[in-house]
Amino acid sequence: MNVITKPERISVTTGPLPGSRKTYVAGVSHPEIRVPTREIPLHETAGEPPLRVYDTSGPYTDPKAEIDIHQGLRPIREPWIRARGDVEEYTGRTVEAADNGFADGSRLVPEFPLSRRPMRAKAGKAVTQLAYARAGVITPEMEFIAIRENLGREVRRNDDARDGESFGASIPDVVTPEFVRDEVAGGRAIIPSNINHPETEPMIIGRNFLVKINANIGNSAVTSSVADEVDKMVWAIRWGADNVMDLSTGRNIHNIREWIIRNSPVPIGTVPIYQALEKVGGAAEELTWDIYRDTLIEHCEQGVDYFTIHAGVRLPYVPLTAKRVTGIVSRGGSIMAKWCLAHYQESFLYTHFEEICDIMRAYDVSFSLGDGLRPGSIADANDEAQFAELETLGELTRVAWKKDVQVMIEGPGHVPMHKIKINMDKQLRECGEAPFYTLGPLTTDVAPGYDHITSGIGAAMIGWFGTAMLCYVTPKEHLGLPDRDDVKTGVITYRIAAHAADLAKGHPAARERDDALSRARFEFRWEDQFNLSLDPETARAFHDQTLPKEAHKVAHFCSMCGPKFCSMKISQDVREFAESGMAQMAEEFRRGGGEIYRSTDELKELVESNKVL
Amino acid sequence: MNVITKPERISVTTGPLPGSRKTYVAGVSHPEIRVPTREIPLHETAGEPPLRVYDTSGPYTDPKAEIDIHQGLRPIREPWIRARGDVEEYTGRTVEAADNGFADGSRLVPEFPLSRRPMRAKAGKAVTQLAYARAGVITPEMEFIAIRENLGREVRRNDDARDGESFGASIPDVVTPEFVRDEVAGGRAIIPSNINHPETEPMIIGRNFLVKINANIGNSAVTSSVADEVDKMVWAIRWGADNVMDLSTGRNIHNIREWIIRNSPVPIGTVPIYQALEKVGGAAEELTWDIYRDTLIEHCEQGVDYFTIHAGVRLPYVPLTAKRVTGIVSRGGSIMAKWCLAHYQESFLYTHFEEICDIMRAYDVSFSLGDGLRPGSIADANDEAQFAELETLGELTRVAWKKDVQVMIEGPGHVPMHKIKINMDKQLRECGEAPFYTLGPLTTDVAPGYDHITSGIGAAMIGWFGTAMLCYVTPKEHLGLPDRDDVKTGVITYRIAAHAADLAKGHPAARERDDALSRARFEFRWEDQFNLSLDPETARAFHDQTLPKEAHKVAHFCSMCGPKFCSMKISQDVREFAESGMAQMAEEFRRGGGEIYRSTDELKELVESNKVL
Repeated sequence: MNVITKPERISVTTGPLPGSRKTYVAGVSHPEIRVPTREIPLHETAGEPPLRVYDTSGPYTDPKAEIDIHQGLRPIREPWIRARGDVEEYTGRTVEAADNGFADGSRLVPEFPLSRRPMRAKAGKAVTQLAYARAGVITPEMEFIAIRENLGREVRRNDDARDGESFGASIPDVVTPEFVRDEVAGGRAIIPSNINHPETEPMIIGRNFLVKINANIGNSAVTSSVADEVDKMVWAIRWGADNVMDLSTGRNIHNIREWIIRNSPVPIGTVPIYQALEKVGGAAEELTWDIYRDTLIEHCEQGVDYFTIHAGVRLPYVPLTAKRVTGIVSRGGSIMAKWCLAHYQESFLYTHFEEICDIMRAYDVSFSLGDGLRPGSIADANDEAQFAELETLGELTRVAWKKDVQVMIEGPGHVPMHKIKINMDKQLRECGEAPFYTLGPLTTDVAPGYDHITSGIGAAMIGWFGTAMLCYVTPKEHLGLPDRDDVKTGVITYRIAAHAADLAKGHPAARERDDALSRARFEFRWEDQFNLSLDPETARAFHDQTLPKEAHKVAHFCSMCGPKFCSMKISQDVREFAESGMAQMAEEFRRGGGEIYRSTDELKELVESNKVL
Repeated sequence: MNVITKPERISVTTGPLPGSRKTYVAGVSHPEIRVPTREIPLHETAGEPPLRVYDTSGPYTDPKAEIDIHQGLRPIREPWIRARGDVEEYTGRTVEAADNGFADGSRLVPEFPLSRRPMRAKAGKAVTQLAYARAGVITPEMEFIAIRENLGREVRRNDDARDGESFGASIPDVVTPEFVRDEVAGGRAIIPSNINHPETEPMIIGRNFLVKINANIGNSAVTSSVADEVDKMVWAIRWGADNVMDLSTGRNIHNIREWIIRNSPVPIGTVPIYQALEKVGGAAEELTWDIYRDTLIEHCEQGVDYFTIHAGVRLPYVPLTAKRVTGIVSRGGSIMAKWCLAHYQESFLYTHFEEICDIMRAYDVSFSLGDGLRPGSIADANDEAQFAELETLGELTRVAWKKDVQVMIEGPGHVPMHKIKINMDKQLRECGEAPFYTLGPLTTDVAPGYDHITSGIGAAMIGWFGTAMLCYVTPKEHLGLPDRDDVKTGVITYRIAAHAADLAKGHPAARERDDALSRARFEFRWEDQFNLSLDPETARAFHDQTLPKEAHKVAHFCSMCGPKFCSMKISQDVREFAESGMAQMAEEFRRGGGEIYRSTDELKELVESNKVL
């Protein structure tokens, strides 16, 4: 059923976003690093410097970059990795027919044209960012992240008091490389960075940094191709996805993943059990630790940056789901539950957890400890099964940390608003402040077709409460595989949720974009409004539907109200009027020896006595 | 610039929603009333009765109803109104050329074909639902509402404990007519019900009832026609708008409004100052009390159910907005601010407030006290100007109540998440629990083109906290006038927000739809999933994009995961397995004299000792 598009036809969207330009900032301790940012220049009448925004899009938006999907991206981290002197090249495992679901002939996606020998830690070495952080080493990755997170705020004045409620998060005024190191060392943040994915631009996931978002892509047995998936990855990061998970479940999993990783500047996550299940023909009970272990190593060698591993789905918890309205809705969770029941045995992911840690430590793959028992409906939210698993994830977090492996924790799912904060608080407590990574949550089940919105509400809230990364949900959730448009809608919706969360937490740089856009709106700088938007193309297109002419781009009104009724226009008149009136009033005060009014009551009196504003 | 579509070409969407049927429930005390509900029958394998949902769509979704836009709807409330014996017909004011913005010739929208003499209270009578409620009278409107709000829950068992956090709201297990009366009498709820709009199906707005949503329509000087507006009204209520505001600002305001009201089964709100401003050629300073008063009567006679009146924009507050990033963004607020400054006088809406009450009492028009100084950006949220006005709205609420006039209070606007609850708490305190009616709020300014989402987040939250009605925001907000698609997107988004709020408040009937849909999902009843969705058409279309065949409607998987990976399928296997295993375990318990396990620890022990589930 797969429709394989020949790799020679792979093309992706390149070039800067409308009105934006790519710039780079060099490191200080590590002058060789070049941190990408996006600058949005404003109209000269604004009298403002360009707004600098976080840029996830990689070289694809740099007009000077040469993009060749068949060559992959430049391995910018490779010199940093080699310079640490703790890795070795070796001959990796051989790709087997089972790795691609036994696809052959015209059904087999061609291998990625280039191959590199994989690297791993030298014997006895831990090559994780956590190990370096604990050893007091500030890696180039950490400095890169400090620069990236600051968005230049260290050189701007910041005289406003912090405005927000952070629920115990500790976001610094300026992010220093030492702060990054300290957060990673404490397990409060992770830097997904497999040494075999040197193409990544380092990023961090933690409660004391900007809230991140993840986009899921991947083919299924029913639909989608390699060209589509590479295109979706580039498309997702163009609109702001910080991470991408490849959730492919059909044939060609190995080869499609290779094309994605070699072309991805953002960390890639996978759920290795999906591929392991393909290797045993889809029969969960046939899974073995050996097959799973081999699959982990396959992903490690390719460069996957984090693994969803449902090691918290323990045998005793499975019966707790039997009375649920929607049972187990996590694919990985249900596979493991079935395995446990079929064998009357504890999950091999749980019993082999330390060995899994040892593998991941050798490549610096991070855990995304899966919530295999997350609720799949409002009815099942916050139940015993869910929380029993979360407690086990806390136990496993401590094991991983002992092994120097980075960890984040996956969270739900479907949760009504009044039960969201309980999830966050319990996760922080059980998992020692390891970063939380939630899917939504959806705040109601009644709107299939709009679950980006039902979940965007929950995502904004849980992001505010402390979730470090929000996994997007697209309009196709529960109904089908997302296409390109769905990916964009999901990403923009989740950028909104993440940004609303940053604002509410009082992140010191978050409000700059809101304020810049609001000023542009008040001053009728239409082009600036479009360019400052999360989606300049849609903003412009909507405006142009009713006022398409170029002249309207400088009009002091829009089609909502028309020229006579524009409150912004009237409000500008009011401001001029009030300011001149206030100057006059101030003069009155000075003559009377008074002070500038402070309260409304005083003002009322003054207005009433002076009949002047 | 207006494009006038001839009224003879007016057509609207009729017929039931996919998979739904219209039913009616008769009253008890007032057996003549017929309360519309929508029933969604489920597949026979569900073994469940049809789900009953609140129905805002009016006769348009009743296949037995005869719809003729040129005749308008049946005046179902007219006998109730006349039976009270406190109203009189009279000769209303004459429609003047100014009422339609001096449109003439082909630019003039034809008058609605039928005309009725208006009614008003007999001298000295108050004909408001508030006056009746205070007098202890349960009107047919109140019984209608009690039946409508219950959704039949009085006959269903309700053995679940209330699950929610209501922040002080008092939602009863069953809504009785007496409860409705008491809420209206206490000012905590309003029933917008102009005696000259007898076509309405009564509805209530209050914190202790289902959260409602309002859709704005209306032409502007730049675009849109009468046919478009009537169609948008019918379209908006089809998807779930409880109320509609006609915010027209161009020519033909009077005639377009008449077409809308005569065909609307939901309350219609207006902002009379918009039309008053048209009558003085758009010059705010030319507005007079007489022109405004005449416009109010014009709207009262036509049957408008509630008026946004910005009487809280007082002269002393205007300078408080001068330093704002976005000044005054309410159209009505900015008009009144300009008037105040131009005349150096207190607002005539404030000084004539008691006379306004006297007019509205004679027709039972409700106040929607406008927040003319609401923030227009994140930067301006919760500032002194906004809260000074809110305090004045509290003062005016008490005046209106003294006059037996129903009141709700408008709220913002643009508010970051951490400042939302402050708004709700202050409104309840200042305005004596009069219903709050908020526009969003938008939780960030960075996403023009997606402000249904930025605001849907805030709407869900403030609805949870206690807002009684949420005014929708469409994707075109800040960019242009919404078209039909935008209206639907706005309505569905706000239905999501309102429902998520009801769920979180612990409304006793809210979760039924979520649970019914979740069960349908778990049992692969695809048709039921589509039909139970807020938007069955979109849910089905999304599913069919990847699995169009009829056979797939009964498939135990979808294209997201494909057949092998479907967690729902695996989960059903797990359930069967676990249930048989648990039966076996229960047998072990009985033999051992044990009890059924309660805690995870106990279970763990049992599993470990018995090796059985």
